[in-house]
Amino acid sequence: MTSDKGDRSAGTAEDARVARTRADIARAAFGVLAREGSDAVTHARVAEIAGYSKTTLYSHWPARIDLIAVALDAIGELPHHERSGDLRSDLIGELRMFRAAVIDFNLDRILAGMAQWASVDEMRQIRDKINTEGQRPLRLMLEEAFAGVELEAAVSMLAGVVACPAIMFGTLPEDDTIASAVDIVLRSAR
Amino acid sequence: MTSDKGDRSAGTAEDARVARTRADIARAAFGVLAREGSDAVTHARVAEIAGYSKTTLYSHWPARIDLIAVALDAIGELPHHERSGDLRSDLIGELRMFRAAVIDFNLDRILAGMAQWASVDEMRQIRDKINTEGQRPLRLMLEEAFAGVELEAAVSMLAGVVACPAIMFGTLPEDDTIASAVDIVLRSAR
Repeated sequence: MTSDKGDRSAGTAEDARVARTRADIARAAFGVLAREGSDAVTHARVAEIAGYSKTTLYSHWPARIDLIAVALDAIGELPHHERSGDLRSDLIGELRMFRAAVIDFNLDRILAGMAQWASVDEMRQIRDKINTEGQRPLRLMLEEAFAGVELEAAVSMLAGVVACPAIMFGTLPEDDTIASAVDIVLRSAR
Repeated sequence: MTSDKGDRSAGTAEDARVARTRADIARAAFGVLAREGSDAVTHARVAEIAGYSKTTLYSHWPARIDLIAVALDAIGELPHHERSGDLRSDLIGELRMFRAAVIDFNLDRILAGMAQWASVDEMRQIRDKINTEGQRPLRLMLEEAFAGVELEAAVSMLAGVVACPAIMFGTLPEDDTIASAVDIVLRSAR
Protein backbone atom coordinates (compact mmCIF):
# COMPACT_ATOMS: atom_id res chain seq x y z
CA MET A 1 0.00 0.00 0.00
CA THR A 2 1.20 3.48 -0.76
CA SER A 3 0.84 6.11 1.90
CA ASP A 4 -1.41 7.93 -0.55
CA LYS A 5 -3.82 5.03 -0.59
CA GLY A 6 -3.52 4.75 3.21
CA ASP A 7 -4.50 8.38 3.59
CA ARG A 8 -7.43 7.91 1.29
CA SER A 9 -8.69 4.92 3.29
CA ALA A 10 -8.39 6.87 6.51
CA GLY A 11 -10.27 9.73 4.89
CA THR A 12 -13.00 7.39 3.75
CA ALA A 13 -13.37 5.81 7.19
CA GLU A 14 -13.52 9.27 8.75
CA ASP A 15 -16.08 10.41 6.14
CA ALA A 16 -18.21 7.34 6.82
CA ARG A 17 -18.10 7.99 10.57
CA VAL A 18 -19.12 11.62 10.09
CA ALA A 19 -21.89 10.59 7.70
CA ARG A 20 -23.19 8.05 10.22
CA THR A 21 -23.12 10.60 13.02
CA ARG A 22 -24.92 13.07 10.81
CA ALA A 23 -27.61 10.53 9.88
CA ASP A 24 -28.10 9.53 13.55
CA ILE A 25 -28.40 13.14 14.63
CA ALA A 26 -30.70 14.02 11.73
CA ARG A 27 -33.04 11.17 12.62
CA ALA A 28 -33.04 12.05 16.32
CA ALA A 29 -33.50 15.77 15.68
CA PHE A 30 -36.35 15.12 13.23
CA GLY A 31 -38.03 12.83 15.76
CA VAL A 32 -37.84 15.50 18.47
CA LEU A 33 -39.10 18.16 16.05
CA ALA A 34 -42.03 16.02 14.88
CA ARG A 35 -43.08 14.74 18.31
CA GLU A 36 -42.20 17.63 20.62
CA GLY A 37 -42.10 20.72 18.40
CA SER A 38 -39.31 23.10 17.42
CA ASP A 39 -38.85 24.51 20.94
CA ALA A 40 -37.73 21.04 22.07
CA VAL A 41 -34.95 20.77 19.47
CA THR A 42 -32.04 21.60 21.82
CA HIS A 43 -28.53 20.16 21.97
CA ALA A 44 -29.33 18.47 25.29
CA ARG A 45 -32.52 16.81 24.07
CA VAL A 46 -31.17 15.65 20.70
CA ALA A 47 -27.95 14.33 22.33
CA GLU A 48 -30.07 12.37 24.82
CA ILE A 49 -32.27 10.82 22.11
CA ALA A 50 -29.39 10.08 19.70
CA GLY A 51 -27.05 8.71 22.40
CA TYR A 52 -24.23 11.15 21.62
CA SER A 53 -22.49 13.66 23.89
CA LYS A 54 -23.57 17.30 23.82
CA THR A 55 -19.92 18.12 23.02
CA THR A 56 -20.13 16.13 19.78
CA LEU A 57 -23.32 17.93 18.83
CA TYR A 58 -21.90 21.36 19.58
CA SER A 59 -18.76 20.62 17.54
CA HIS A 60 -20.74 19.76 14.39
CA TRP A 61 -23.83 21.96 14.86
CA PRO A 62 -22.90 24.94 17.03
CA ALA A 63 -26.29 26.71 16.96
CA ARG A 64 -29.83 25.48 17.59
CA ILE A 65 -30.78 26.54 14.07
CA ASP A 66 -28.16 24.08 12.74
CA LEU A 67 -29.93 21.26 14.60
CA ILE A 68 -33.29 22.33 13.23
CA ALA A 69 -31.80 22.55 9.73
CA VAL A 70 -30.42 19.03 9.94
CA ALA A 71 -33.78 17.78 11.22
CA LEU A 72 -35.59 19.43 8.34
CA ASP A 73 -33.25 17.82 5.80
CA ALA A 74 -35.08 14.61 6.66
CA ILE A 75 -38.28 16.07 5.21
CA GLY A 76 -36.60 16.26 1.81
CA GLU A 77 -36.41 12.47 1.95
CA LEU A 78 -40.08 11.87 2.73
CA PRO A 79 -41.67 9.22 0.52
CA HIS A 80 -43.59 10.27 -2.59
CA HIS A 81 -46.10 8.47 -4.77
CA GLU A 82 -44.62 6.25 -7.47
CA ARG A 83 -45.93 7.34 -10.88
CA SER A 84 -48.26 4.98 -12.74
CA GLY A 85 -48.70 7.21 -15.77
CA ASP A 86 -52.41 7.88 -15.16
CA LEU A 87 -52.52 11.54 -14.15
CA ARG A 88 -55.69 11.32 -12.06
CA SER A 89 -54.57 8.36 -9.97
CA ASP A 90 -51.05 9.79 -9.67
CA LEU A 91 -52.36 13.10 -8.33
CA ILE A 92 -54.65 11.30 -5.88
CA GLY A 93 -51.76 9.04 -4.83
CA GLU A 94 -49.40 11.96 -4.26
CA LEU A 95 -51.97 13.89 -2.17
CA ARG A 96 -52.59 10.76 -0.07
CA MET A 97 -48.84 10.48 0.53
CA PHE A 98 -48.80 14.12 1.62
CA ARG A 99 -51.71 13.38 3.97
CA ALA A 100 -49.85 10.35 5.38
CA ALA A 101 -46.76 12.51 6.00
CA VAL A 102 -48.89 15.01 7.91
CA ILE A 103 -50.07 12.17 10.18
CA ASP A 104 -46.79 10.27 10.52
CA PHE A 105 -44.52 13.27 11.04
CA ASN A 106 -46.87 15.92 12.46
CA LEU A 107 -46.04 17.84 9.31
CA ASP A 108 -48.71 20.45 10.04
CA ARG A 109 -46.99 21.40 13.30
CA ILE A 110 -43.61 21.42 11.58
CA LEU A 111 -44.90 23.67 8.79
CA ALA A 112 -46.50 25.95 11.36
CA GLY A 113 -43.28 26.05 13.36
CA MET A 114 -41.26 26.91 10.28
CA ALA A 115 -43.68 29.73 9.41
CA GLN A 116 -43.23 31.20 12.88
CA TRP A 117 -39.45 31.02 12.59
CA ALA A 118 -39.41 32.55 9.13
CA SER A 119 -38.20 35.94 10.30
CA VAL A 120 -34.78 34.28 10.68
CA ASP A 121 -33.31 34.50 7.18
CA GLU A 122 -31.51 31.15 7.33
CA MET A 123 -34.71 29.47 8.48
CA ARG A 124 -36.65 30.99 5.62
CA GLN A 125 -34.18 29.59 3.10
CA ILE A 126 -34.40 26.14 4.66
CA ARG A 127 -38.18 26.30 4.63
CA ASP A 128 -38.36 27.41 1.02
CA LYS A 129 -36.00 24.63 -0.06
CA ILE A 130 -37.97 21.98 1.80
CA ASN A 131 -41.35 23.12 0.58
CA THR A 132 -40.11 23.47 -3.00
CA GLU A 133 -38.73 19.92 -2.88
CA GLY A 134 -41.87 18.65 -1.19
CA GLN A 135 -44.11 20.16 -3.88
CA ARG A 136 -41.95 19.10 -6.83
CA PRO A 137 -43.67 15.76 -7.65
CA LEU A 138 -47.10 17.44 -7.53
CA ARG A 139 -45.83 20.26 -9.77
CA LEU A 140 -44.31 17.84 -12.30
CA MET A 141 -47.63 16.00 -12.56
CA LEU A 142 -49.66 19.19 -12.98
CA GLU A 143 -47.28 20.40 -15.71
CA GLU A 144 -48.93 17.77 -17.90
CA ALA A 145 -52.21 19.68 -17.71
CA PHE A 146 -51.38 23.31 -16.86
CA ALA A 147 -48.78 25.98 -17.58
CA GLY A 148 -47.88 29.47 -16.38
CA VAL A 149 -50.07 31.14 -13.83
CA GLU A 150 -52.70 28.36 -13.96
CA LEU A 151 -49.96 25.89 -12.97
CA GLU A 152 -49.07 28.02 -9.93
CA ALA A 153 -52.73 28.20 -8.99
CA ALA A 154 -53.27 24.46 -9.46
CA VAL A 155 -50.24 23.54 -7.31
CA SER A 156 -51.40 25.78 -4.45
CA MET A 157 -54.98 24.55 -4.77
CA LEU A 158 -54.13 20.84 -4.56
CA ALA A 159 -51.52 21.31 -1.84
CA GLY A 160 -54.19 23.39 -0.05
CA VAL A 161 -56.69 20.53 0.00
CA VAL A 162 -54.40 18.73 2.45
CA ALA A 163 -52.55 21.64 4.08
CA CYS A 164 -55.48 24.00 4.74
CA PRO A 165 -57.67 21.73 6.85
CA ALA A 166 -54.53 20.43 8.60
CA ILE A 167 -53.27 23.86 9.59
CA MET A 168 -56.64 25.60 10.05
CA PHE A 169 -58.65 22.85 11.73
CA GLY A 170 -56.25 20.04 12.60
CA THR A 171 -58.27 17.73 10.34
CA LEU A 172 -57.37 15.89 7.15
CA PRO A 173 -59.39 15.38 3.97
CA GLU A 174 -61.19 12.10 3.34
CA ASP A 175 -60.34 10.09 0.23
CA ASP A 176 -63.40 11.40 -1.58
CA THR A 177 -62.47 15.04 -0.86
CA ILE A 178 -59.02 14.45 -2.34
CA ALA A 179 -60.55 12.77 -5.40
CA SER A 180 -63.07 15.62 -5.80
CA ALA A 181 -60.31 18.21 -5.72
CA VAL A 182 -58.32 16.35 -8.36
CA ASP A 183 -61.48 16.00 -10.49
CA ILE A 184 -62.31 19.71 -10.20
CA VAL A 185 -58.82 20.59 -11.39
CA LEU A 186 -58.66 17.99 -14.19
CA ARG A 187 -62.19 18.70 -15.51
CA SER A 188 -61.12 22.28 -15.85
CA ALA A 189 -57.93 21.39 -17.74
CA ARG A 190 -59.66 19.34 -20.41
CA MET B 1 -87.17 57.78 38.71
CA THR B 2 -87.85 54.46 40.41
CA SER B 3 -85.06 52.68 42.14
CA ASP B 4 -85.62 49.90 39.59
CA LYS B 5 -84.87 52.29 36.75
CA GLY B 6 -81.90 53.67 38.66
CA ASP B 7 -80.50 50.19 39.11
CA ARG B 8 -80.93 49.49 35.41
CA SER B 9 -79.10 52.70 34.46
CA ALA B 10 -76.24 51.82 36.78
CA GLY B 11 -76.16 48.34 35.25
CA THR B 12 -76.08 49.81 31.76
CA ALA B 13 -73.28 52.22 32.62
CA GLU B 14 -71.32 49.37 34.21
CA ASP B 15 -71.97 47.16 31.18
CA ALA B 16 -70.80 49.91 28.84
CA ARG B 17 -67.62 50.36 30.86
CA VAL B 18 -66.87 46.64 30.79
CA ALA B 19 -67.61 46.50 27.06
CA ARG B 20 -65.26 49.42 26.44
CA THR B 21 -62.51 47.80 28.53
CA ARG B 22 -63.01 44.56 26.66
CA ALA B 23 -62.81 46.30 23.27
CA ASP B 24 -59.65 48.19 24.31
CA ILE B 25 -57.98 45.02 25.55
CA ALA B 26 -59.07 43.03 22.51
CA ARG B 27 -57.57 45.63 20.18
CA ALA B 28 -54.33 45.84 22.16
CA ALA B 29 -54.01 42.05 22.49
CA PHE B 30 -54.69 41.54 18.79
CA GLY B 31 -52.07 44.17 17.93
CA VAL B 32 -49.47 42.44 20.10
CA LEU B 33 -50.39 39.05 18.62
CA ALA B 34 -50.20 40.30 15.03
CA ARG B 35 -46.99 42.32 15.42
CA GLU B 36 -45.04 40.35 18.02
CA GLY B 37 -46.44 36.79 17.91
CA SER B 38 -48.33 34.71 20.45
CA ASP B 39 -45.40 34.44 22.89
CA ALA B 40 -45.59 38.22 23.40
CA VAL B 41 -49.27 38.16 24.44
CA THR B 42 -48.69 38.50 28.20
CA HIS B 43 -50.64 40.44 30.84
CA ALA B 44 -47.71 42.86 31.24
CA ARG B 45 -47.34 43.60 27.53
CA VAL B 46 -51.06 43.94 26.77
CA ALA B 47 -51.60 46.14 29.86
CA GLU B 48 -48.75 48.38 28.72
CA ILE B 49 -50.10 48.74 25.17
CA ALA B 50 -53.74 49.22 26.26
CA GLY B 51 -52.93 51.63 29.10
CA TYR B 52 -54.67 49.54 31.78
CA SER B 53 -53.26 48.08 35.00
CA LYS B 54 -52.16 44.45 35.07
CA THR B 55 -54.61 44.01 37.98
CA THR B 56 -57.53 44.94 35.72
CA LEU B 57 -56.36 42.48 33.10
CA TYR B 58 -55.91 39.65 35.61
CA SER B 59 -59.37 40.27 37.08
CA HIS B 60 -61.10 39.87 33.69
CA TRP B 61 -58.73 37.46 31.93
CA PRO B 62 -56.92 35.39 34.57
CA ALA B 63 -54.92 33.17 32.16
CA ARG B 64 -52.75 33.97 29.13
CA ILE B 65 -55.02 31.83 26.99
CA ASP B 66 -57.89 34.20 27.88
CA LEU B 67 -55.89 37.10 26.50
CA ILE B 68 -55.10 35.19 23.32
CA ALA B 69 -58.76 34.23 23.00
CA VAL B 70 -59.92 37.84 23.31
CA ALA B 71 -57.29 38.86 20.73
CA LEU B 72 -58.49 36.23 18.31
CA ASP B 73 -62.09 37.40 18.66
CA ALA B 74 -60.95 40.42 16.66
CA ILE B 75 -60.27 38.14 13.67
CA GLY B 76 -63.97 37.29 13.54
CA GLU B 77 -64.56 40.95 12.74
CA LEU B 78 -62.10 41.15 9.85
CA PRO B 79 -63.55 42.80 6.74
CA HIS B 80 -65.01 40.66 3.97
CA HIS B 81 -65.80 41.37 0.35
CA GLU B 82 -69.19 42.97 -0.29
CA ARG B 83 -71.21 40.80 -2.67
CA SER B 84 -71.94 42.17 -6.14
CA GLY B 85 -73.93 39.15 -7.32
CA ASP B 86 -71.38 38.09 -9.96
CA LEU B 87 -69.89 34.89 -8.59
CA ARG B 88 -66.52 35.16 -10.33
CA SER B 89 -65.79 38.71 -9.22
CA ASP B 90 -67.16 38.00 -5.74
CA LEU B 91 -64.82 35.02 -5.30
CA ILE B 92 -61.86 37.04 -6.56
CA GLY B 93 -62.81 39.93 -4.28
CA GLU B 94 -63.11 37.68 -1.23
CA LEU B 95 -59.72 36.04 -1.88
CA ARG B 96 -58.13 39.47 -2.28
CA MET B 97 -59.62 40.50 1.07
CA PHE B 98 -58.14 37.34 2.61
CA ARG B 99 -54.78 38.24 1.07
CA ALA B 100 -55.03 41.79 2.45
CA ALA B 101 -55.78 40.40 5.92
CA VAL B 102 -52.66 38.21 5.72
CA ILE B 103 -50.60 41.34 5.03
CA ASP B 104 -52.31 43.76 7.42
CA PHE B 105 -52.57 41.42 10.38
CA ASN B 106 -49.72 38.93 9.81
CA LEU B 107 -52.50 36.38 9.57
CA ASP B 108 -50.08 33.68 8.37
CA ARG B 109 -48.09 33.94 11.60
CA ILE B 110 -51.29 33.98 13.64
CA LEU B 111 -52.62 30.87 11.86
CA ALA B 112 -49.26 29.16 12.34
CA GLY B 113 -49.22 30.13 16.02
CA MET B 114 -52.74 28.78 16.51
CA ALA B 115 -51.76 25.49 14.85
CA GLN B 116 -48.85 25.11 17.26
CA TRP B 117 -51.08 25.79 20.26
CA ALA B 118 -53.77 23.41 19.09
CA SER B 119 -52.88 20.70 21.60
CA VAL B 120 -54.60 22.91 24.19
CA ASP B 121 -58.27 21.96 23.86
CA GLU B 122 -59.61 25.46 24.52
CA MET B 123 -57.24 26.87 21.90
CA ARG B 124 -58.41 24.35 19.35
CA GLN B 125 -62.04 25.36 19.88
CA ILE B 126 -61.15 29.04 19.45
CA ARG B 127 -59.19 28.30 16.29
CA ASP B 128 -61.96 26.21 14.76
CA LYS B 129 -64.54 28.91 15.49
CA ILE B 130 -62.38 31.64 13.97
CA ASN B 131 -61.46 29.68 10.87
CA THR B 132 -65.06 28.57 10.33
CA GLU B 133 -66.24 32.19 10.58
CA GLY B 134 -63.40 33.38 8.37
CA GLN B 135 -64.25 30.85 5.66
CA ARG B 136 -68.02 31.38 5.80
CA PRO B 137 -68.34 34.04 3.06
CA LEU B 138 -66.20 31.94 0.69
CA ARG B 139 -68.28 28.87 1.49
CA LEU B 140 -71.59 30.71 0.92
CA MET B 141 -70.38 31.86 -2.50
CA LEU B 142 -69.18 28.40 -3.51
CA GLU B 143 -72.51 26.87 -2.45
CA GLU B 144 -73.93 28.50 -5.60
CA ALA B 145 -71.76 26.22 -7.73
CA PHE B 146 -70.90 23.16 -5.64
CA ALA B 147 -72.43 20.83 -3.05
CA GLY B 148 -71.32 18.00 -0.79
CA VAL B 149 -67.77 16.76 -0.99
CA GLU B 150 -66.97 18.96 -4.02
CA LEU B 151 -67.96 21.99 -1.93
CA GLU B 152 -65.51 20.95 0.81
CA ALA B 153 -62.78 20.45 -1.78
CA ALA B 154 -63.49 23.80 -3.48
CA VAL B 155 -63.41 25.74 -0.17
CA SER B 156 -60.04 24.21 0.80
CA MET B 157 -58.64 24.74 -2.69
CA LEU B 158 -59.51 28.43 -2.91
CA ALA B 159 -58.50 29.15 0.69
CA GLY B 160 -55.29 27.25 -0.13
CA VAL B 161 -54.39 29.57 -3.00
CA VAL B 162 -53.81 32.32 -0.43
CA ALA B 163 -52.94 30.30 2.68
CA CYS B 164 -50.50 27.77 1.17
CA PRO B 165 -47.92 30.16 -0.30
CA ALA B 166 -48.29 32.37 2.79
CA ILE B 167 -47.58 29.57 5.26
CA MET B 168 -45.18 27.52 3.13
CA PHE B 169 -43.15 30.29 1.46
CA GLY B 170 -44.11 33.57 3.11
CA THR B 171 -45.32 34.83 -0.26
CA LEU B 172 -48.76 35.84 -1.50
CA PRO B 173 -50.47 35.12 -4.83
CA GLU B 174 -50.58 37.79 -7.54
CA ASP B 175 -53.96 38.98 -8.82
CA ASP B 176 -53.68 36.75 -11.90
CA THR B 177 -52.99 33.64 -9.78
CA ILE B 178 -56.12 34.34 -7.72
CA ALA B 179 -58.15 34.86 -10.91
CA SER B 180 -56.75 31.65 -12.43
CA ALA B 181 -57.70 29.64 -9.36
CA VAL B 182 -61.25 31.00 -9.43
CA ASP B 183 -61.47 30.25 -13.17
CA ILE B 184 -60.20 26.68 -12.71
CA VAL B 185 -62.88 26.07 -10.09
CA LEU B 186 -65.71 27.80 -11.98
CA ARG B 187 -64.89 26.22 -15.36
CA SER B 188 -65.17 22.88 -13.64
CA ALA B 189 -68.55 23.73 -12.10
CA ARG B 190 -70.26 24.73 -15.34
